[in-house]
Amino acid sequence: MSVDKDALVKPRLLRGFRDYLPEQMIARQKMIATIREVYERYGFVPLDTPAMEYTETLLGKYGEESSKQIFRFVDLEGNDVALRFDLTVPLARVVAQYQDLPRPFRRYQVGPVWRFDKPDPGRFREFIQFDLDTVGSDSMAADAEILSGICDTMEALGIERYRVRCSNRKILNALIAFADVDPRRATHVFRVIDKIDRIGREGVRQELTRGRVDASGDVIPGLGLDERAVSRIMEFLNIAGSTRAEVLDALDELFRGIPGAQQGIDELRRIDEYLTALDISEQKVVFDVSIARGLDYYTGPIFETILLDAPEFGAVFSGGRYDGLVERFLGEKIPATGASIGVDRLLAALLKLGVVELRPSTAQVLVTVMEPDRLVEYQKITRRLRQAGINAELYLGPDRSIRKQLKYADRQQIPIAVIVGPDEFARREVSIKDLREGLRRQGEVSERSEWLKARFGQVTVPRDKMLDVIREILDQEARGL
Amino acid sequence: MSVDKDALVKPRLLRGFRDYLPEQMIARQKMIATIREVYERYGFVPLDTPAMEYTETLLGKYGEESSKQIFRFVDLEGNDVALRFDLTVPLARVVAQYQDLPRPFRRYQVGPVWRFDKPDPGRFREFIQFDLDTVGSDSMAADAEILSGICDTMEALGIERYRVRCSNRKILNALIAFADVDPRRATHVFRVIDKIDRIGREGVRQELTRGRVDASGDVIPGLGLDERAVSRIMEFLNIAGSTRAEVLDALDELFRGIPGAQQGIDELRRIDEYLTALDISEQKVVFDVSIARGLDYYTGPIFETILLDAPEFGAVFSGGRYDGLVERFLGEKIPATGASIGVDRLLAALLKLGVVELRPSTAQVLVTVMEPDRLVEYQKITRRLRQAGINAELYLGPDRSIRKQLKYADRQQIPIAVIVGPDEFARREVSIKDLREGLRRQGEVSERSEWLKARFGQVTVPRDKMLDVIREILDQEARGL
Repeated sequence: MSVDKDALVKPRLLRGFRDYLPEQMIARQKMIATIREVYERYGFVPLDTPAMEYTETLLGKYGEESSKQIFRFVDLEGNDVALRFDLTVPLARVVAQYQDLPRPFRRYQVGPVWRFDKPDPGRFREFIQFDLDTVGSDSMAADAEILSGICDTMEALGIERYRVRCSNRKILNALIAFADVDPRRATHVFRVIDKIDRIGREGVRQELTRGRVDASGDVIPGLGLDERAVSRIMEFLNIAGSTRAEVLDALDELFRGIPGAQQGIDELRRIDEYLTALDISEQKVVFDVSIARGLDYYTGPIFETILLDAPEFGAVFSGGRYDGLVERFLGEKIPATGASIGVDRLLAALLKLGVVELRPSTAQVLVTVMEPDRLVEYQKITRRLRQAGINAELYLGPDRSIRKQLKYADRQQIPIAVIVGPDEFARREVSIKDLREGLRRQGEVSERSEWLKARFGQVTVPRDKMLDVIREILDQEARGL
Repeated sequence: MSVDKDALVKPRLLRGFRDYLPEQMIARQKMIATIREVYERYGFVPLDTPAMEYTETLLGKYGEESSKQIFRFVDLEGNDVALRFDLTVPLARVVAQYQDLPRPFRRYQVGPVWRFDKPDPGRFREFIQFDLDTVGSDSMAADAEILSGICDTMEALGIERYRVRCSNRKILNALIAFADVDPRRATHVFRVIDKIDRIGREGVRQELTRGRVDASGDVIPGLGLDERAVSRIMEFLNIAGSTRAEVLDALDELFRGIPGAQQGIDELRRIDEYLTALDISEQKVVFDVSIARGLDYYTGPIFETILLDAPEFGAVFSGGRYDGLVERFLGEKIPATGASIGVDRLLAALLKLGVVELRPSTAQVLVTVMEPDRLVEYQKITRRLRQAGINAELYLGPDRSIRKQLKYADRQQIPIAVIVGPDEFARREVSIKDLREGLRRQGEVSERSEWLKARFGQVTVPRDKMLDVIREILDQEARGL
């Protein structure tokens, strides 16, 4: 001990924060690369903005969004600053600040955001968002691109069973008129409707009227709407159809003559037309009037994506159209539409669905070291593998026994080990061990010593055949053999 | 104007912070992907840690590193917290906290760090670091891997002319004994030596003795060393050789009998042996005793990388071996070696050297829109391109004229435009315009109207030939034709 024990710092994280150890990170990086690739195919380009901004940039001059719990402090120069709580407000600042950016500006941004929420299992104070936005186009084609990209993303991630639910704030606003509710209460009504998945139709009815007591005994006050309003809202929520067009026809009928309704319905009709051109099936993107998305700022189409085999993760990819984006800065509305992925939530869902696996290493080969005095030889072998584009780790750990080194490879899920002992050195050979093969056949012999002797999946070849044999094993693995 | 002018927020950044607009981000992402790929080939795995930690985690219980200017504040729960100022201390915490991580633990981490420095052109308060470290191995093979990875990285980035300079803190400590300097002043001496590139030998001599006045008139106090000490230090700094072995032989001779020297020289001999096995030439990695690396925590080999054609960027990739890593947490020393890349600085250097180019878009094709009413047709064409793996942007901007849309493609450096007008629709054809070809031949005709008519690089083909023609143009571009 070279340090006073009292001076030791306990290694720990702040509440609501977490580390991403390699196996999580490898999976996360792969997932993010897939999403990036999909949206780059659509012409989206990356943007990065600082973690920290003036608080007024993030919250507006009068702190309109100050209900948000944020990490806010005064810096050493006396500035009132805060960590960003989303990637949308910084995008708004960028659009206002660099007016020569191309329009529409299709950008994606991946990075952490910070919210001083109450931490829960699955809810963190620092989390990664992947945002996609198209700023400067009021064409529904921009919304259709985001939606089509969601479908391409799901499929690129290996998810077949998902559903994108789509509605429109203009239609919800028409509902307020249709049900004759005070427009100032619209947001409250939307928030209640948005809960229908969790609390059911009866729950919604109760929250729209006199309130209810939830499972934990908490009292949830009702909005006190009258029966006529509620029955109209319930009538609206009954709208369904087996195609997007059927839903729109039903809406058309219900909302005939309601101000603003037609525009919302037309927007969805246009989206339907574009989605059809883009080959997006009626099963993948559905029009569902029961979604409302809590955020105030949506003004047009809204959408959210659920995984049919993991609905408990909720909406993993959601967004909509919003006009107020740069208003805080320029005082004018600029049309924008976008979506946001909760990266951590989506990753958790992918893991649960088994379409992503956790691996602690990306190495394809472990070069073991049987004779430490000949490390230079092992380095040369490792270098040859790397130059051939194979990820190769040279064993530099403390264990001298080959058994323990192979166990290490196993634990790290490195599929191949290269073994060179005195015999191999003498004959300029290498032994190559396919560790998956060894694992598969482990059951065939009962004694560990026998198993080791059996050398399942191990071949000894001249050094100049090493790359061929390893490539063949990796090929087999890639083809799932 | 829908917003009160007084409520408008000026879109601006905090001092010392910056945005990465798409062209910078595209280049940065590509550079980072290249570095990741190189080190994953060596078996390094990614790690991510929070932006924010307990201040005591970052600075130690008694704030040993409190000279660092950091963003520090008290959070809403009353915790003394700070933003990380490097990626090394968080790594130390991780190693102490998860003791079942494999050893050696080879990890890379890319992310922002924050320092409340005085902002300068080229110095920011938030900047991205790319760190590589191997924790838990005292073998010089670990250091050799980092060094070999630096060389592979430089070459993968397209830089041929670079030099990695390598020395050893044990040798510098021996210098302190050799020159008979008070060991408590060692760090000061190292800091002066480290400036030799900037201030020259005479500047070093002055700073070691009575000080000097620099170009701006500032007085730099001297260390007041005596003549005998200084002449020994200068003798040491004279050491050179045309090979790594020659430098070591000269050191051996100078330091015969100096305590600790032999161990440092032996470490470098081992590294030389490994680098030779790994085919790293005498020109790429040199032993250069004039580097000292300012940081206190180095205990063994140290190294830094300069770009021979852009030396003004200083060390772009540097590091060394350090033992004190997890001591703050566990009270025991764990060997570690690592390197850090100043991502922004390296990117700036690559741009200056012209090995990286700035492009505002990753799109390969712009599908122009001549007849907005037939948007669905354009969407189908775009979708076919995307499904073929081609990054394709559908023009959704305000301009209706084809000339302006082509100008947009030019500005966005999108190499190919697809044009479908009434004639093409009628004949189920598409026109494909190679915009680079158009640019090349623009000089051949003087009138813009003539140039437009000439349709250089434009071919009209049946729709089902579209992909073939576009692939051919992209192939040519990839081969630099």
